[in-house]
Amino acid sequence: MTAQRFQLYDTTLRDGTQQEGMVLTVDDKLAVARHLDAFGVGFIEGGWPGAVPKDTEFFRRARTELRLDTAELAAFGATRKPGVAAAADPQVRALLDAETPVVTLVAKSHPRHVELALRTTLAENLAMIGDTVRLLVREGRRVFVDAEHYVDGYRLDRGHALDVVRAAADAGAEAVVLCDTNGGSLPDAVRAVVTATAGATGVPLGIHCHDDSGCAVANTIAAVDAGVRHVQGTAHGYGERCGNADLFTVAANLVLKRGLPVVPAARLRGMALSARAVAELTGVPGRAAAPYVGPAAFTHKAGLHASALRVDPGLYQHIDPALVGNGMRTLVSDMGGRSSVELKARELGYEVDAGSETVARAAARIKDLENRGHSFESADASFELLLREELDGGGRPARPFEVVSWDVRVDAGPAGRAPTRARVRLRIDGVPLVAEGEGNGPVNALDRALHAALDPFFPQLSGLELTDYQVRVLGRGSEAAARVLITFGDGRRTWGTVGVDENTVAASWRALLDAVHYALLDTAAPAAAEPTRCAAAG
Amino acid sequence: MTAQRFQLYDTTLRDGTQQEGMVLTVDDKLAVARHLDAFGVGFIEGGWPGAVPKDTEFFRRARTELRLDTAELAAFGATRKPGVAAAADPQVRALLDAETPVVTLVAKSHPRHVELALRTTLAENLAMIGDTVRLLVREGRRVFVDAEHYVDGYRLDRGHALDVVRAAADAGAEAVVLCDTNGGSLPDAVRAVVTATAGATGVPLGIHCHDDSGCAVANTIAAVDAGVRHVQGTAHGYGERCGNADLFTVAANLVLKRGLPVVPAARLRGMALSARAVAELTGVPGRAAAPYVGPAAFTHKAGLHASALRVDPGLYQHIDPALVGNGMRTLVSDMGGRSSVELKARELGYEVDAGSETVARAAARIKDLENRGHSFESADASFELLLREELDGGGRPARPFEVVSWDVRVDAGPAGRAPTRARVRLRIDGVPLVAEGEGNGPVNALDRALHAALDPFFPQLSGLELTDYQVRVLGRGSEAAARVLITFGDGRRTWGTVGVDENTVAASWRALLDAVHYALLDTAAPAAAEPTRCAAAG
Repeated sequence: MTAQRFQLYDTTLRDGTQQEGMVLTVDDKLAVARHLDAFGVGFIEGGWPGAVPKDTEFFRRARTELRLDTAELAAFGATRKPGVAAAADPQVRALLDAETPVVTLVAKSHPRHVELALRTTLAENLAMIGDTVRLLVREGRRVFVDAEHYVDGYRLDRGHALDVVRAAADAGAEAVVLCDTNGGSLPDAVRAVVTATAGATGVPLGIHCHDDSGCAVANTIAAVDAGVRHVQGTAHGYGERCGNADLFTVAANLVLKRGLPVVPAARLRGMALSARAVAELTGVPGRAAAPYVGPAAFTHKAGLHASALRVDPGLYQHIDPALVGNGMRTLVSDMGGRSSVELKARELGYEVDAGSETVARAAARIKDLENRGHSFESADASFELLLREELDGGGRPARPFEVVSWDVRVDAGPAGRAPTRARVRLRIDGVPLVAEGEGNGPVNALDRALHAALDPFFPQLSGLELTDYQVRVLGRGSEAAARVLITFGDGRRTWGTVGVDENTVAASWRALLDAVHYALLDTAAPAAAEPTRCAAAG
Repeated sequence: MTAQRFQLYDTTLRDGTQQEGMVLTVDDKLAVARHLDAFGVGFIEGGWPGAVPKDTEFFRRARTELRLDTAELAAFGATRKPGVAAAADPQVRALLDAETPVVTLVAKSHPRHVELALRTTLAENLAMIGDTVRLLVREGRRVFVDAEHYVDGYRLDRGHALDVVRAAADAGAEAVVLCDTNGGSLPDAVRAVVTATAGATGVPLGIHCHDDSGCAVANTIAAVDAGVRHVQGTAHGYGERCGNADLFTVAANLVLKRGLPVVPAARLRGMALSARAVAELTGVPGRAAAPYVGPAAFTHKAGLHASALRVDPGLYQHIDPALVGNGMRTLVSDMGGRSSVELKARELGYEVDAGSETVARAAARIKDLENRGHSFESADASFELLLREELDGGGRPARPFEVVSWDVRVDAGPAGRAPTRARVRLRIDGVPLVAEGEGNGPVNALDRALHAALDPFFPQLSGLELTDYQVRVLGRGSEAAARVLITFGDGRRTWGTVGVDENTVAASWRALLDAVHYALLDTAAPAAAEPTRCAAAG
């Protein structure tokens, strides 16, 4: 194996879309490709033209709409069918018609799959690989060959597995990618098969792992340790069953723990941002606990750790989170007590001391609210409101308006539409005020009614937008309660609030109110405007 | 290292509770312990008595309320404070007062942590370990010592790290557990440190890994390969930051891929069930894609795979899912087309053929609905309804009742309570019918109103219960829609339905209706009851 440039090959848009719950439009795929390119991957596999109509369309539009910086675009497809010429196989033609610089072919390397899925002979399988690679190379393509089920196939029939690798390389494939397709291998097996294959063939190899044994990342690293320089994976480990190797974790491990120039250090600093962008586009959230890029990856909860963290964050973190564009967070919970409250308060810019009365009172209130189902872990704004109440006035909220009552109406006719209207009755400086809002559900309608009521008095609220909410049902039966987490944004930053009530709409209302009160922190009195009745439709 | 019996040590109730979003009551902890015992772990670490009041209470109640079958209960705590006798340290006393057969002590093994967190000398650190272990052993406890930050500590100061291991073993600890506390190690490093430590000390070792590099499972396996026979982990990999080693994945890998008797094979067949039970109790869902136990672990989506799967499921699965109590599923989506529809239909007991007109029509409708935001992947009941419509009457639903209209009212007064009432107007056999329901939110109220209206006519609906629902907002602005997934149960089994609408409450209504229609499949006419106005309160 000669020294190769390291190839980071992303297959989010092909293998990743086998993920349960992922349905991407062509626009989504183009947008994801741009983020992967910005992160710095070497190759982006866009889909299977000819087999999936949406993918054919993706490659057609990519020609004019996708300008890539670091990445080359790859089309994925299969070797020719048994018994036909490669040039006469419509599926192979579709690969050429995709007009990508790179084509990646899947080839069978496991004898049972050749027999049962292809229904042909091992000799014809080798001919199919050789013919198809040669045609694509002759047409000017760089070709990679994914040897499907290679790790298992090698153990069952070493001779045929090695023949597949040689057939692909002899025909001009740039690298042969050994796939652990069913994800059942552990790192020692992957390392052994890679080492033996490299030794027997001398062909440049790649690796493609699945996570069915929870070892996709470690298997990939094991293959790299054994000499592989082409690594496949997907954003967030998206993929069928247990998913593929997580390309973000693999890239960070290789750069930070192996010193391999997989992506430039500057690009790595944008990794968490790329990860968030991709998750938003696919609609399938990454794991909060995902290594390196997850919002919880550098989040500390334990009281033990919280005290040590004040001394030296490096004591409990394996890397500086800034290296991957992430940050340290502290969770406020009964586990951590006063130390956590102090740490969190300092993170938010308040100079408080764990030994103070204020922190003791805040910790006690948090503990009590948590016992009743609150969770402040992703509701920084609700935490800050509570802390401010303790700092300012010993627990008495100084609120710029009062709530008198509110209601919501949903009326669905036979046509199925269900207009939803909310009405809020408030008092500002003692003067009563009624406002209405219409929306696509109770939370949205209440949010609009609040804006209609308050924006004239507090212009700073007009940019405030509800960006997400989650409802969680706690407990069962008569003890059931709902916890609602709401995320707000004002275009520059976002913050979260929490509301708990036995009624889901009332829990949402509490979280909405916290969001508004948070936006009005440090607002003494309303702007001069005449209280009146107003309405917002939407 | 002499031959040891394998020790599977669970720390879900201690290290696992550091997981973001996890807040367990004492009742929750007792219930989780029972499920872990039923799964067959050898040790259950229940918490830190003395440090966490809830954990003190847990051990107090465990004495009378927890009858364990396979597991021994362990209390977790720290070595004595610097400069005091172990017997005089209240934290150590609390460990004895917990009256568990096993105590696990955390000991510092990294010189920077000894200096900065303990603020003492390395010699005193060794004395603290020896003294505390001796006291506990003298009091009849089996003692494990968790050597915190061992992997990093070993690399920084090999001599002190080995001294820690020897001090613990000399004082009577049964095993010293090497911890990769910050989760930054890769398998080769873990294996090297374990091998060197075992060789230098001859002490029985354990392993405790975190997943910050995405290698917690592989690191644990590497340690076992190097001779370790005591393995720590948590259910679902719960834990701080990126979590701990997932005990389910570790156990299955060791039993099925290494042939180690970690848990009996019969217990392994209950693993997926134990995993679900623990996730329900903690309120923190396991990953759908979790190896072995995740609902997606043996779920197939790709058309390519769907056709091969019809031939032999073993071709795409690394193990038989029944070995771990899981099952194979097929996802219906535009990726798979007709093959997926056929496979899914057969899974549900319908004899259809991918080449038939019926399957073609069903696949086309699914594709169209998916383009509008539906997802059938976790809504088997909605899929079956659609399939039945195509099988029975070419797309025309034969429904036992008609919907005329419905509405929902939420009224909140100054006291904050928000009673929610729903009214539905239906027609059964042309006869109009109005019913009302009250609930703790719009979905609950609509569900009760439907029951009030329909149960008298269709008694089979009375056992139908809404067990969960999820709301997902799709898109932004004027294009926004909500997708609601609802889970129903009748005590024997559960099924899911999907509803999509621009209005969140209307989307819920559609999913509710599908659930009712599904329960009424094969119901020709209503039972003889007089249509009338009725109400349900709750």
